[in-house]
Amino acid sequence: MPSPEMKKNAAGRMVPVDINGQTAVPYQGVGKYRPTGNRAAPRIATCVDYPESGNKVVPDLKTALKEAGIRDGMTISSHHHLRNGDFVANAVFDAADELGVKDLRWFPSASFPCHAPIIEHMKNGVVHHIEGSMNGPLGAYCSEGKMRGMGVLRSHGGRYQAVQDGDVHIDIAVIAAPTADPFGNAHGLTGPAACGLLGFALADSQYADRVIVVTDNLIEFPCIPWQIQGNNVDFVTTMDAIGDASKIVSGTTQITKSPDRLRIAEMTARFVKEAGIMHDGFSFQGGAGGTSLSFAIFLMDMMREAGIKARFVRGGSTKYLTRMLEEGLTDYILDGQTFDLDGVRSMRENPSHVDTSPFTSYNWHGKGNFASMLDCVVLGATEVDVNFNANVVTHSDGRLLHGIGGWQNCLSSKCTILPIPAFRDRIPVIVDRVTTLVGPGELIDVIVTERGIAINPLREDLIKAVHGKGLPIRTIQEMKAEIDDLVGGAPKPPELEEKVVAAIKWVDGTVIDCVRQVKV
Amino acid sequence: MPSPEMKKNAAGRMVPVDINGQTAVPYQGVGKYRPTGNRAAPRIATCVDYPESGNKVVPDLKTALKEAGIRDGMTISSHHHLRNGDFVANAVFDAADELGVKDLRWFPSASFPCHAPIIEHMKNGVVHHIEGSMNGPLGAYCSEGKMRGMGVLRSHGGRYQAVQDGDVHIDIAVIAAPTADPFGNAHGLTGPAACGLLGFALADSQYADRVIVVTDNLIEFPCIPWQIQGNNVDFVTTMDAIGDASKIVSGTTQITKSPDRLRIAEMTARFVKEAGIMHDGFSFQGGAGGTSLSFAIFLMDMMREAGIKARFVRGGSTKYLTRMLEEGLTDYILDGQTFDLDGVRSMRENPSHVDTSPFTSYNWHGKGNFASMLDCVVLGATEVDVNFNANVVTHSDGRLLHGIGGWQNCLSSKCTILPIPAFRDRIPVIVDRVTTLVGPGELIDVIVTERGIAINPLREDLIKAVHGKGLPIRTIQEMKAEIDDLVGGAPKPPELEEKVVAAIKWVDGTVIDCVRQVKV
Repeated sequence: MPSPEMKKNAAGRMVPVDINGQTAVPYQGVGKYRPTGNRAAPRIATCVDYPESGNKVVPDLKTALKEAGIRDGMTISSHHHLRNGDFVANAVFDAADELGVKDLRWFPSASFPCHAPIIEHMKNGVVHHIEGSMNGPLGAYCSEGKMRGMGVLRSHGGRYQAVQDGDVHIDIAVIAAPTADPFGNAHGLTGPAACGLLGFALADSQYADRVIVVTDNLIEFPCIPWQIQGNNVDFVTTMDAIGDASKIVSGTTQITKSPDRLRIAEMTARFVKEAGIMHDGFSFQGGAGGTSLSFAIFLMDMMREAGIKARFVRGGSTKYLTRMLEEGLTDYILDGQTFDLDGVRSMRENPSHVDTSPFTSYNWHGKGNFASMLDCVVLGATEVDVNFNANVVTHSDGRLLHGIGGWQNCLSSKCTILPIPAFRDRIPVIVDRVTTLVGPGELIDVIVTERGIAINPLREDLIKAVHGKGLPIRTIQEMKAEIDDLVGGAPKPPELEEKVVAAIKWVDGTVIDCVRQVKV
Repeated sequence: MPSPEMKKNAAGRMVPVDINGQTAVPYQGVGKYRPTGNRAAPRIATCVDYPESGNKVVPDLKTALKEAGIRDGMTISSHHHLRNGDFVANAVFDAADELGVKDLRWFPSASFPCHAPIIEHMKNGVVHHIEGSMNGPLGAYCSEGKMRGMGVLRSHGGRYQAVQDGDVHIDIAVIAAPTADPFGNAHGLTGPAACGLLGFALADSQYADRVIVVTDNLIEFPCIPWQIQGNNVDFVTTMDAIGDASKIVSGTTQITKSPDRLRIAEMTARFVKEAGIMHDGFSFQGGAGGTSLSFAIFLMDMMREAGIKARFVRGGSTKYLTRMLEEGLTDYILDGQTFDLDGVRSMRENPSHVDTSPFTSYNWHGKGNFASMLDCVVLGATEVDVNFNANVVTHSDGRLLHGIGGWQNCLSSKCTILPIPAFRDRIPVIVDRVTTLVGPGELIDVIVTERGIAINPLREDLIKAVHGKGLPIRTIQEMKAEIDDLVGGAPKPPELEEKVVAAIKWVDGTVIDCVRQVKV
């Protein structure tokens, strides 16, 4: 595939204006792009075509795909709540292979190392390319320029937006469901592959032409709660196991043991406290990474000490967030995914542990969303630059190894904090220019490393708020210079090929950057 | 308005093919009409246009309507969960009047006697006409040919279908919410006007251009559960009171005390038992009418005695259904509306008392719905004819005084039973030809009067099942002859004007019959 026509976007990045044959709009700046037109409009169905008994069960996945009319060139979607334990996506493309179907576009909400067998299906022509976050080997395969089409990375909210707006039309959605009934109602709360919720599959269930629910825990109607509504489902089928429970949720969540990272986490919590963000009725979101978890634990201590209670916290939930809820340190958990067994249990048992979806939380083309209401979010990054721009998808060597997740969406919060180590494998994390631009610097407020805290100069309010509070506040340039000195100079940007292997979408569907093929 | 062009439909009824300027499809028979095309596609919104704080509160309803862009000829929708206690719809049209707006189409899910003031707004030109069920005085006004446009009556499922399919485009939806947050998340479980759930407003929230939530119980974000999702809401506003609690839900539900009706209810329950419908894991739906409630009580006794448990029952819930749930006589209540305080409490407290919507339960243009899964439903009727056709909207004098509710949708069940008195005000209820055809006879299986049980000859299985079980099984012709004899001959059909005042839609959006002006 020759490199497509490129244009410079508002962030100064050259981006493709044709992505897999579809016109793409270059990024225009935060809040600058205004969509026109109407949402995607699924075909009108009729009960005439569905069994009166409500029983939509077909013998196996292959039959379901056949009855759903699978054919060459279609778009097949899946969700990633089963994370690295998912058995279903591989089974889908194995079945497609048996059916002799070619050139499928796989549209997962994210893919994981467990999906490495799909590389074979890209080689044998069953899968044309992947549009969705690629964690690990599939990202590496894409990075090396081996995928026939261009990868497209979207945030969770951006994926909902793309489906809702008709940017991506899903022909067949295959929804792995830990529990389901014959009508297609499904949830993730119980069953051997329990994963908590199924929010990442919501758009798929609403907008795909055909929806297949696959479960290993088929129960009698009604499956309550119906996180996925059977009224959107065409076929239900079963597999012996839809996933490997041990890789879906952790038995126990690990917090960081690294002294540097603990120091970063504690500084982050102190910043949140001293800046006045930690006030009664506040809200925050943390991830499931070790530093982020440690931050939450430090913050909980400070909240207890100060007698402060949050109105809501947002997950990915873990035993630490559920403990906050159970201790009364927050009224609600508004959760996008459960990361451990405690998260699943809590969501199943506690009505104040609420499942959310990319529609409620992140969709930029909605009438508002939850992300901008957060008082603060604590996120990771692979690189940040001196203008606070950040990267979460590629490493400093240019390899595409991570998805965006909800990261871009979370930048809407009132205070976005990136606690990151100064180095990774001895390579400085603060750079002059991020390899891939995923988040615009104007939305990133605070960088915390083990060497201090840098506040975005745009946030004079935050600078003022923490003045004289004894925090190690520094400019990002100072921190960078000090870090570079330690390794004998600024890191060199990676040398890359011309070929664009993936496009990075902004939350509004415009193209903020692209990823180029690595030299191998 | 001259009478529009009429065509004979598949039921032999003359129906208009132009309804308020829109082409209408005559009824083609049960399951015969096949929709084409795609669902309505709302305009793509963007977070750019909504406050980052999530606070969408505006000072009052008038401001909300103005900011929503209200103008002449628009369609304004409302729901009827506040039933005869609703204060909001009247306030909407009072505000529209103050704003000088004319010719609005009011699209309620149903209207009640409390909405009689809207007659004034039809007289003064603010409201052009009503499309929605009209209970009481508004129905009488329509019957007398005084409304400028034609009334359109749809079932709950038909209303969802019409909005989903774009047959009715809602410009502004006004959603009365017993509890809401500033983002627009709302539910009906708590607050002075608690009504249980808000399912009738679901389509409105999803498809209207602008959505206004009106509450008298504004709480801090997040309002959990979000029966209405704030992500679909444009404006939130408050009123001192959105309704009169005593008219929203009953303090205590009344069962019938009439010996005839008790006998009918008991016979109905016995039929359900003897026909084998009452088996372990079965399901049924009853209404909140006195006979229907008594039926449920008789059935509960029989279930207890036989040690039989239902998988689910469908409401309108009352204290009798909640008692079944609490006693363990059913696993779930799948509820469309709560009729009394116990129903509201149970839905609030019991995760097995589940709120549903016309989308899940009744939408004919979905991928199946719940209605066809019911083992039996017990419904009312104003008239039935010897071919089991039934009427629920007009009285024998031709006056349009009732809405369709979920009645048409429920006819999909595996066994539809109409327990009805042989007479009302000394007028026989079994007629040669129903004044208005609302439900086709082929879907109505059993008629129970105090004079016996008539089984539709199409249901040979049911006839066989109850043979020799000691039930007073008779033909409908026998029952009719006996009843007519008692009043000295068959009732005469009402004399009506030519003018069509309302169209009756079937569940698929086709026109099954129409209502003509009464002679006054």
